Amino acid sequence: MDRRSFLKASAVGGTAAAASGLAAPVYAQGKRTLTMVTSVPDGFAVFDDAATFLSTAITEMTDGQITIDKKPAGSLVGAFEVFDAVTAGQADMYHSADYYFGGQHPGYYFFTAVPFGATGQEMINWYLHAGGKELHDELGQIFGLKSFLAGNTGLQPGGWFNKQINSADDLNGLKFRMPGLGGRALAIAGASVQNVPGGEIYQALSSGAIDGAEWIGPLADERLGLQEVCEYYYTAGFHEPGSALSAAMNRDVWDSLTPAQQSIVEKAAMATHHWNLSQSNANNGAALARLQAGGTKLMSFPDDVWDAFGAASATALDEYMDDPLYAQIRESFNASLKASSGWASVSDSAYTAQRDRVLGA
Amino acid sequence: MDRRSFLKASAVGGTAAAASGLAAPVYAQGKRTLTMVTSVPDGFAVFDDAATFLSTAITEMTDGQITIDKKPAGSLVGAFEVFDAVTAGQADMYHSADYYFGGQHPGYYFFTAVPFGATGQEMINWYLHAGGKELHDELGQIFGLKSFLAGNTGLQPGGWFNKQINSADDLNGLKFRMPGLGGRALAIAGASVQNVPGGEIYQALSSGAIDGAEWIGPLADERLGLQEVCEYYYTAGFHEPGSALSAAMNRDVWDSLTPAQQSIVEKAAMATHHWNLSQSNANNGAALARLQAGGTKLMSFPDDVWDAFGAASATALDEYMDDPLYAQIRESFNASLKASSGWASVSDSAYTAQRDRVLGA
Repeated sequence: MDRRSFLKASAVGGTAAAASGLAAPVYAQGKRTLTMVTSVPDGFAVFDDAATFLSTAITEMTDGQITIDKKPAGSLVGAFEVFDAVTAGQADMYHSADYYFGGQHPGYYFFTAVPFGATGQEMINWYLHAGGKELHDELGQIFGLKSFLAGNTGLQPGGWFNKQINSADDLNGLKFRMPGLGGRALAIAGASVQNVPGGEIYQALSSGAIDGAEWIGPLADERLGLQEVCEYYYTAGFHEPGSALSAAMNRDVWDSLTPAQQSIVEKAAMATHHWNLSQSNANNGAALARLQAGGTKLMSFPDDVWDAFGAASATALDEYMDDPLYAQIRESFNASLKASSGWASVSDSAYTAQRDRVLGA
Repeated sequence: MDRRSFLKASAVGGTAAAASGLAAPVYAQGKRTLTMVTSVPDGFAVFDDAATFLSTAITEMTDGQITIDKKPAGSLVGAFEVFDAVTAGQADMYHSADYYFGGQHPGYYFFTAVPFGATGQEMINWYLHAGGKELHDELGQIFGLKSFLAGNTGLQPGGWFNKQINSADDLNGLKFRMPGLGGRALAIAGASVQNVPGGEIYQALSSGAIDGAEWIGPLADERLGLQEVCEYYYTAGFHEPGSALSAAMNRDVWDSLTPAQQSIVEKAAMATHHWNLSQSNANNGAALARLQAGGTKLMSFPDDVWDAFGAASATALDEYMDDPLYAQIRESFNASLKASSGWASVSDSAYTAQRDRVLGA
């Protein structure tokens, strides 16, 4: 049964409910296939791995009552068109990164990553225990979506360059791929920023359409072959300290699921974030070592470049403050980040510093 | 249908399968209630919150086909008897911390926390992506269990004292509550170590049976009222840098679940770890501030005490190396920890250091 025929059928059940003044929930019956559009090609490391984990988990846990038909970028709609496709009912759900949809609402930037924002752990602290999820729901109400965090790439490196960045002046006019508010900040710092879908980055670098790019991290970047077209890899970046991936379901489709199916989708998304963040954190070290062994030169931005990133990021984050919901999301995010990072400094950070000192690591 | 009557019934389905030479899986039918014994009283912050999240998730996702009847410590069996109760079939599953069962097999220490070991994130990197889960399964085969990580308290503080620890000599003869290999290391360092269940710590401190104790962290310790009976709270500890909680199901019960139900239990456990680790990391900072405002004196161990902890921990970890499976688990754990911590040092740690510097935090 497709969504539209279900929605028609649901009118039948309305009579008894009307007598009590409550709408009786009417659930779709039988096996269903939900179309999930994504923003990357099939098999893309980390990003598509999360989409695959999510869709497999839903199918397994519902015993095939819900099968997810994953449609990679470009097969049904383009990489950045998935949001509009789901709000319009052209697809049932998407798996993507919500900062691609800052044009729809700037509040979405916070549900992937913002510059000088949260690490992967700090992100989920906010989302599950300090108001993030409820604000994601509020954004979803505007667009007829039910959204979930469903993946996390961990901290993203500064990216791939063919020249060294020794001062902020070296950013001037650089044609660089970076999405979200991090990209906006890089533009404020002087770069010529473009947002290229993951599936097109290698080609854009090869053709010289862009001078450099960031993608995800060593494991995913290596798979993309970016080491073949760039010489320098800057590690810790300012722009995406723990990028969450998201799934969003058309609200009518969501409302047609049984409570058990809704719980399954919600827990599948949580398990996906859990599995995906640890995938990057477990594998990036070995991938980075392979890149280095293959000739990639590992670099760190100097302090004054970090300072320039800091100033530009503050400007970028301020640009949407006349939107009340954006301002509310930013305030909630910052309050949680302050609490989370304060605790981390006296717990994990203090411990790992002592561990390194005592064990001589 | 209880487990025993199910197991009898399963013999009926064997005939057809015998013809093909394969055992046909026979699944329990209808609604079932599984008894889950735990190691803490109902309502204990963080620890019982994880058990509740897990059991609620399973019941919701199976649409009530499986209801978990959670039995707190002492109601069916004692806090530390849950492992034997499940292996013997007296209960269907437990939720606990596997380092309580180092006496059954020392390999279990690694599935909660070991001194100078993994943070919460490093733990799950190992478990899901570097062999931890498979080794947990190997231990489970010995005891007829199917085990899962199902919760994480995050880094545990050094604990509660009524005197300052200014040198390793101050540990001599101190009657202190600490479980696992951390507790063994503290004993090697000179303390008189006891393993008291969570539900009995407050009373043991009040009566003077012990001089000090560690429990979980600010959020959980505050709820226990430890600030009422101890003056000093040492933050970052060496003994449990990210303590995983576990669920384990009797293997016969596990085998009686349908593949969909097995997937639900597995994903529910993953979601529980995800939710629980962020619960502590989101809330500990505010709880610590409340404790301090109430008069608790926050302390850090000096470097030479950390050095003593380091030496004692190495000795404690070496004591079981004649057990081949313990040695294999330790080697796997350490290899993953090295890779994980190396990446963390150039990603999250490098970033948060720059964030603190640039933002002046």
